Amino acid sequence: MSVFTPVPESVLSSWLKNYAIGRLVELKGISAGVQNSNFFVTTTLGRYVLTLFEGIGRAELPYYLHLMAHLARHGLPVPAPIANRDNEYLGTVEGKPAVLVIRLQGASVMEPDEGHCARAGAMLAGLHLAGQSYGRRQPNPRGPQWREQAASQVREHLPADERALLDEEMRFQATIETDTLPAGAIHADLFRDNVLWDGEHIGGVIDFYFAGHDALLFDVAVTVNDWCTRPGGELDPARTAALLTAYHAERAFSDAERVAWPAMLRAAALRFWLSRAVDFHLPREGEMVMVKNPDEYRDILRQRIAYSPDLPAV
Amino acid sequence: MSVFTPVPESVLSSWLKNYAIGRLVELKGISAGVQNSNFFVTTTLGRYVLTLFEGIGRAELPYYLHLMAHLARHGLPVPAPIANRDNEYLGTVEGKPAVLVIRLQGASVMEPDEGHCARAGAMLAGLHLAGQSYGRRQPNPRGPQWREQAASQVREHLPADERALLDEEMRFQATIETDTLPAGAIHADLFRDNVLWDGEHIGGVIDFYFAGHDALLFDVAVTVNDWCTRPGGELDPARTAALLTAYHAERAFSDAERVAWPAMLRAAALRFWLSRAVDFHLPREGEMVMVKNPDEYRDILRQRIAYSPDLPAV
Repeated sequence: MSVFTPVPESVLSSWLKNYAIGRLVELKGISAGVQNSNFFVTTTLGRYVLTLFEGIGRAELPYYLHLMAHLARHGLPVPAPIANRDNEYLGTVEGKPAVLVIRLQGASVMEPDEGHCARAGAMLAGLHLAGQSYGRRQPNPRGPQWREQAASQVREHLPADERALLDEEMRFQATIETDTLPAGAIHADLFRDNVLWDGEHIGGVIDFYFAGHDALLFDVAVTVNDWCTRPGGELDPARTAALLTAYHAERAFSDAERVAWPAMLRAAALRFWLSRAVDFHLPREGEMVMVKNPDEYRDILRQRIAYSPDLPAV
Repeated sequence: MSVFTPVPESVLSSWLKNYAIGRLVELKGISAGVQNSNFFVTTTLGRYVLTLFEGIGRAELPYYLHLMAHLARHGLPVPAPIANRDNEYLGTVEGKPAVLVIRLQGASVMEPDEGHCARAGAMLAGLHLAGQSYGRRQPNPRGPQWREQAASQVREHLPADERALLDEEMRFQATIETDTLPAGAIHADLFRDNVLWDGEHIGGVIDFYFAGHDALLFDVAVTVNDWCTRPGGELDPARTAALLTAYHAERAFSDAERVAWPAMLRAAALRFWLSRAVDFHLPREGEMVMVKNPDEYRDILRQRIAYSPDLPAV
């Protein structure tokens, strides 16, 4: 459940007068997402999603909103923010920073086949290519600095074997140089539930609120770890090959990326193990968020340390 | 039939490398529209429409493209132009100015009921409200100057009774002051075939290439004359009331507009009578355009001279 701030219809009706999208027909809370309050908004002129930001600072929001606008402008199916009559994206509802975005059609596919993985890989490459001309920059909010902090927070809560795994992986990642890798705006959370399918086409890529400037290959690793992993943490070779080959066809991997790939898969696994472990061991009070089991990503990390596939050849 | 310039798949595949929308899957000419060459373009990442401009000068195109982008950014279902990797909308294909836009879903409804007319009226008001913050300006290409020229071109081709009707209406319109009316970016061609329905919702408003800066009420008149007219040219009172009431609920008519309404209905009828008469009596060589019968709008003009309904009260 993720409506932290209820919005009365009368408040929204009045707020919509700042926009040119007609009058309110229906307002409905959305019970998904972990950070913000989300609502389906139907007006006389269209269908939208209203987001009230609960945890992200107002100063950081323009990076996300303009990134979504930029990618939509480049023809990709992302939730374009709606400008009000003063040409502004960001407003205030019930004291919270708020934005309306286009409501995209489709539903997630939680058991993707090779075809889905190939389309997801191609879409990720499209996002990266379009993002190259995006002018704003904000660091990946789950980058190395956050990683250090999260690791020190959870370390004492872990059993001995996991603590050893964490220490070893933190030491290993500290030796990895990512500055030479192609970088840009990355989604950083392109899990299966953030892709909406309209038949066999991708009708929407949602939830850009972990986006930031980082190595593109880190984004590929996050995506592969979610889309191509079998229960237990092993990679499915066919799905992995499908995703990587389709990505590579749109944006060819560089030699530096080929070298960095095993470490990136581990870094991406570590990032989600850590965030889930933080949520699990240090739950934030008053938040009605479903806590995900951190063990899944601990196992993925172990599997990636044991084995990583090669990137497609040139 | 409106593919004046064929585009080979190899040319388009290569041109698409300037974009971030994946690789070409299908290219198909569209047999509708009267001014430009249009194609459905399906790529690995989405569905788009390619337009090659055959008659509009390159200098006039930014007004239209940025208007569509502006309206889309304000949440309205118009064909947003796609930016290429250099952030440009306008390119060149086979020597012609060319643009890719988002392909909107839906189909036209040629026998609209009161519900359709109400939604069309509300949408037109939304376009006008969102257009108020559009920064560019270009005169209505079918405004008073064009009208004078078109009337003098066709006058000699008309039978005596139509010539008298034309002379009288041109004299009448010359006495009408429109500068005091609320003005802005108008679509100027919101006929039933330029609105795509997705069930009972409007999924798309297309063909902005007659847009310009003019009295908003002229746009309302163009729309009413098409959506609310019975065979023979009379207005259908129920559909007219539905469209005007829904428009008025989004943007209230002013007193000046109430006074000008009968003259605007006549001006809008005259504009389409004239353009169809020009196409009919002075066909442009080599153009494979279906010429529409000018008599329809001659009859509408006669009916509007005989009777015009009032705008909704405050």
